Amino acid sequence: MRTQVGIIGAGPAGLLLSRLLHLRGIDSVVLENRSRDYVEARIRAGILEQHTVDTLTDAGVGDRLQREGLEHRGIYLQYPGTRHKLDFPELCGRTVWVYGQTEVTKDLIKAQLDGGPPLLFDVSDVSVEDVDGDSPRIRFTGADGTPQVLECDAIAGTDGFHGVSRPVVQAGSGRVWERTYPYAWLGILADAAPATDELIYAWHPDGFALYSMRSPKVSRLYLQVDPGEKIEDWSDDRIWENLATRFALDGWEVNTGTITEKSVLPMRSFVSAPLRRGRLFLAGDAAHIVPPTGAKGLNLAVADVTLLASALVRLLQEKQTDLVDSYSDRALARVWRCTHFSWFMTSMLHRSGDDFDAELQLSQLRRIAQSEPAARELAENYTGLPLEY
Amino acid sequence: MRTQVGIIGAGPAGLLLSRLLHLRGIDSVVLENRSRDYVEARIRAGILEQHTVDTLTDAGVGDRLQREGLEHRGIYLQYPGTRHKLDFPELCGRTVWVYGQTEVTKDLIKAQLDGGPPLLFDVSDVSVEDVDGDSPRIRFTGADGTPQVLECDAIAGTDGFHGVSRPVVQAGSGRVWERTYPYAWLGILADAAPATDELIYAWHPDGFALYSMRSPKVSRLYLQVDPGEKIEDWSDDRIWENLATRFALDGWEVNTGTITEKSVLPMRSFVSAPLRRGRLFLAGDAAHIVPPTGAKGLNLAVADVTLLASALVRLLQEKQTDLVDSYSDRALARVWRCTHFSWFMTSMLHRSGDDFDAELQLSQLRRIAQSEPAARELAENYTGLPLEY
Repeated sequence: MRTQVGIIGAGPAGLLLSRLLHLRGIDSVVLENRSRDYVEARIRAGILEQHTVDTLTDAGVGDRLQREGLEHRGIYLQYPGTRHKLDFPELCGRTVWVYGQTEVTKDLIKAQLDGGPPLLFDVSDVSVEDVDGDSPRIRFTGADGTPQVLECDAIAGTDGFHGVSRPVVQAGSGRVWERTYPYAWLGILADAAPATDELIYAWHPDGFALYSMRSPKVSRLYLQVDPGEKIEDWSDDRIWENLATRFALDGWEVNTGTITEKSVLPMRSFVSAPLRRGRLFLAGDAAHIVPPTGAKGLNLAVADVTLLASALVRLLQEKQTDLVDSYSDRALARVWRCTHFSWFMTSMLHRSGDDFDAELQLSQLRRIAQSEPAARELAENYTGLPLEY
Repeated sequence: MRTQVGIIGAGPAGLLLSRLLHLRGIDSVVLENRSRDYVEARIRAGILEQHTVDTLTDAGVGDRLQREGLEHRGIYLQYPGTRHKLDFPELCGRTVWVYGQTEVTKDLIKAQLDGGPPLLFDVSDVSVEDVDGDSPRIRFTGADGTPQVLECDAIAGTDGFHGVSRPVVQAGSGRVWERTYPYAWLGILADAAPATDELIYAWHPDGFALYSMRSPKVSRLYLQVDPGEKIEDWSDDRIWENLATRFALDGWEVNTGTITEKSVLPMRSFVSAPLRRGRLFLAGDAAHIVPPTGAKGLNLAVADVTLLASALVRLLQEKQTDLVDSYSDRALARVWRCTHFSWFMTSMLHRSGDDFDAELQLSQLRRIAQSEPAARELAENYTGLPLEY
């Protein structure tokens, strides 16, 4: 088998890259070691920056997003006694959209299978070879158990944190930066109409809570918990009680409903550099993880592959190496900006440390509620910076 | 002896309070347990916010400040390869002034001794009594060894971190917040013309360095060092070598000269609340300490006593308690804002933690260099927020 770009991993990064290349006349094959059902059921992020919405729409996979996505014009920052709205259009002229990553993935898979480049699920034993030369290849075992070789001009490693691509890049001359936060999120999906028009980021002495939503009928709520907490110890009643306490505001209540999913999510940050070794390029979670507080994970992946698609088109159609040569540095500049912003939001909102830290957090929150430049700095980062940061 | 306001401590807070009260017809007596020579030789902060300059000028002690003070219109933020200027007038319409706290103190003492309220140096055994009633008093031993009693309507505790006032307030129902930073500053005064027009705040892998000045011929320079460092281990040569490394920039050099003073300064933050018990009021370092990175210590003290002076005038002349009742909360709002800003500057610029922290710091510095709201947020805080924050 032969293609121009072999893409390992059918998350939104790999699928979107394949689509962007396809639209510009570059062949690719996407390999995924999970099943379609598994990939389409993974619950992940749900906030899209305007840039992400534009990219998906331009790529022809924005129809359902435009129909079902919810435009959000701000967020609430809450701390005891105060719920303050940050108005994004007023602060920075941009908005964000609520549309689950799961839905983005479904839309991309549908487009791919509807006349797009090959997308192979349930492959196994994936490995990459000869990435330092001009003809790298991917070996894998197909869903039917047959060993295969995919000859490529370039390979994209969009296979996530546990994928095979990063170790190969790292074996060149890579390094990593990592931070594990001393708390986790207990996240639930509930069949309950959101009791708020915008997301609520709430600081509370008991810990952070986030009120978000996936549709007019489905709420997505999170509680800061200890990373060692077992989900079995959190009955639905206990979850709703904690949410009620942390979001408490006079004359207002959380809407409850049937909890359809609950899990404990770790909070960590990870950056790998460089994002390239020879003809192998990393993008998305294969290269970096951010804690979810800033809603940056999916948006960073989209930014990565937007840059990477242009770089690969230039390499394979115009035979110019300038954009692939600069890809890693350009992508990492944005990665670090978003990593810092995610750390900022995470550190400001989660209880950790001592009472002095708590007062610093409250002082920062009050400042954002009172100061136009402080609010604008948050809004610009939250809604997304320019692609070429 | 009798006065309206007994003031304990002849630092800039106590002296300025006495002066502000004097100008509004309220008597006071200032007690100081050190000698005049000692007080006038203490080397302290050197950056005055516009608000502080205005307050001193309005109080009639700004003549020499206006003559000898240096108006500064910005600062440089430096990190390897970059020295970025923040232009304060452009960002927020304000400037700051370089004029040593030592000089402010000398000017205030001169004015006090030149027809101002009594100022007694070298007193000892100071204690306060009956602060919960309307007639508190201060007992002390005069410089001549005679025990004295100063009957007052109110007492101001401007006697610093180690003074007698705060424990009395705390014994009511107080609490404290404290943070000791894991680094210190090695500070020098040198007879050397500053090689820079503005202060340079430099991030460097070896640690933070600050280039400041006290006059066109005197430089004040700082190096981040371990808190356990002994000043004896730092020869002048070693200091200049470290400064040269940390401030390195192509085509530019630190100006060296005779070092006339050197010492290691701890870095910590401390807040005490409330700032009042009955008729005893805390102001300045007696109530709060900030690390020097944000240049906020002296300016906070001036803001405290400006609020306190108005509150005492209202209490003693108009017999209204509203301003003394709200003094603590109003002053503390500003204290926490400045405590947070000082923490922000300190945490962004000092090496501590791991390589992930270093990348977060560099990402924040780059953001300030590139983003108007991020730069403006720093500039507004640095040049000083409104008095009634």
